[in-house]
Amino acid sequence: MNTATKVFSFSKIMLTATIMAVCTMTAFASDALMTEAQGIFKPIPAYPPEIEGNPATADKLELGKMLFFEPRISKSGFISCNSCHNVGMGGMDYQPTSTGHGWKQGPRNAPTVLNSVYNVAQFWDGRAKDLAEQAKGPIQAGVEMNNTPENVVKTLKSMPEYVELFKSSFPGEKDPVTFDNMAKAIEVFEAALITPDSRFDKFLNGNSAALSNTEKEGLKLFIDNGCASCHGGINMGGDDYYAMGVVNMPGKDIMAGDKGRFSVTHAKDDEFMFKSPSLRNIEITPPYFHSGAVWGLQEAVAVMNDSQIGADLSDKDIEKITAFLLTATGVQPKVEYPILPAPTDGTLKPSLK
Amino acid sequence: MNTATKVFSFSKIMLTATIMAVCTMTAFASDALMTEAQGIFKPIPAYPPEIEGNPATADKLELGKMLFFEPRISKSGFISCNSCHNVGMGGMDYQPTSTGHGWKQGPRNAPTVLNSVYNVAQFWDGRAKDLAEQAKGPIQAGVEMNNTPENVVKTLKSMPEYVELFKSSFPGEKDPVTFDNMAKAIEVFEAALITPDSRFDKFLNGNSAALSNTEKEGLKLFIDNGCASCHGGINMGGDDYYAMGVVNMPGKDIMAGDKGRFSVTHAKDDEFMFKSPSLRNIEITPPYFHSGAVWGLQEAVAVMNDSQIGADLSDKDIEKITAFLLTATGVQPKVEYPILPAPTDGTLKPSLK
Repeated sequence: MNTATKVFSFSKIMLTATIMAVCTMTAFASDALMTEAQGIFKPIPAYPPEIEGNPATADKLELGKMLFFEPRISKSGFISCNSCHNVGMGGMDYQPTSTGHGWKQGPRNAPTVLNSVYNVAQFWDGRAKDLAEQAKGPIQAGVEMNNTPENVVKTLKSMPEYVELFKSSFPGEKDPVTFDNMAKAIEVFEAALITPDSRFDKFLNGNSAALSNTEKEGLKLFIDNGCASCHGGINMGGDDYYAMGVVNMPGKDIMAGDKGRFSVTHAKDDEFMFKSPSLRNIEITPPYFHSGAVWGLQEAVAVMNDSQIGADLSDKDIEKITAFLLTATGVQPKVEYPILPAPTDGTLKPSLK
Repeated sequence: MNTATKVFSFSKIMLTATIMAVCTMTAFASDALMTEAQGIFKPIPAYPPEIEGNPATADKLELGKMLFFEPRISKSGFISCNSCHNVGMGGMDYQPTSTGHGWKQGPRNAPTVLNSVYNVAQFWDGRAKDLAEQAKGPIQAGVEMNNTPENVVKTLKSMPEYVELFKSSFPGEKDPVTFDNMAKAIEVFEAALITPDSRFDKFLNGNSAALSNTEKEGLKLFIDNGCASCHGGINMGGDDYYAMGVVNMPGKDIMAGDKGRFSVTHAKDDEFMFKSPSLRNIEITPPYFHSGAVWGLQEAVAVMNDSQIGADLSDKDIEKITAFLLTATGVQPKVEYPILPAPTDGTLKPSLK
């Protein structure tokens, strides 16, 4: 072995040692990050949760799916739950605020139905305690489906196939076709719309390679700068109410004159408090914020930095956080389009007025 | 054997013989009716037809399905093909005339997309020669999706998943993401929306027991009174243009000032000529006529009797024809809701204006 070869060999050994050391450090850091993340977030499980007092059955799931896709529960016969909570489009509607009856625009951005079962309550201001209560809102809202419970029940009772499905879904009940049972069936279907197996879930489940280094750096920044305080848990959000504008109030276009939970409780402390939105599937659910005023995810992260964190994150940091958020897109639900029953003479005719 | 037993036995033999004779007569009549019907109608086959010059592939079918459910090809981002041709509701929208952009009402009742591949041409006036040409219409119509081909292509090109699917669906093309290829993909998907195996199809396929006696009497009346002249073939209609009001012009509410094919050809002979609608799945596709002015099927048959046949059918006859028509509801297509691609910065933002 000549000197040149020796030097080369020595260099090779040193290089290898260096690479190994860096790898070990990264692995350590990654393991520590994984442990930290596992303490803050939870992966979406493979199967939907049970709803207390509203057990899922095959019939109730089918009924709930039919009702979710049923435009005839709206006054116009044109709008269904799926119109604004599109199961093929991240569980929402790609509108700043939803379009409803009479082409009117609702006041807030449609929250995604995906994984919504994991939220502490429903709507941006949490005014519905669960998905069943939530389902009754838009059906009656003038700017959404503009219908009445009486007309909905009349329409459902007019179709024998629905009557049979309500009977088998709510056995033993004397008059099972009710507005409440409609909501309970929808709740069971919606609770099944979960999106497990995102790359972030895989990471939380122990697969360190599921995230790239940049994404891991983004996750670290997300935790270290307090983003995870409002966007933690199984839904990366949705677990409580938090103030908008802790550091700086976002612009008028973003706030849109909305005082959040204050409109429900009228408590001064609830001014500008909103349920933190879930960041799961955030990639496919623009636009962002309750006003839907921001279309770009990176821009939304920058707004949050400015208004909530005040950490003066660099553009590069914001890019990394954004890269991390893109790893939270899960496997979207497989939904076979339901075949809705034939109407009868008693089925209410649509009215666009 | 005493006399009483003998008499009883004799009566039994006579009764059996009589029953057999009646059965044989019915069978004969039924066989003759079946043969006659087989000469006029054709059953829907198990598999969709090939489209000349537009072969179906798995990728193209998936792309066509995605585009059919894609609201972002409308200006509002809110209306898709499925909004008015709902695959869960007989392939149409339960509206007299369709609701579109700006909550405007279109001029005519949405024809069902189901089995539409078997129509001689598309639209009530046949102004589109095939489903691909048809698909381009509503996307651009101000009262429907109100978009432009340029904006549609821009939107589709903004999403890499679409670009890839266009590439694999139209291999070898330099610039596959075009408005024409979009229409061709939609055509392939729509052509797959066929509904075989109705009871009437089973009858046409040789199963005499698939129809009840009343339904068979309805079929016989349908043939004998000339209904089948305009509503024959594989689609029970849709094969040619026929005049409305041969005997009496229907009321203004039904005609709605519409001159049908005249608006396309401007030929005097085409005044009040319409493509006869398919009567397949008629049970689930109210309201009826190009104006959607009639909600009851029996009423629609009565209107036809008065305006087209002039046969002075009794109420009982009309009931029987209606009973027959209800046997033409086929097995509805199983469609898994497509997961649409994530938008990018280049994806056009919705506009409700």
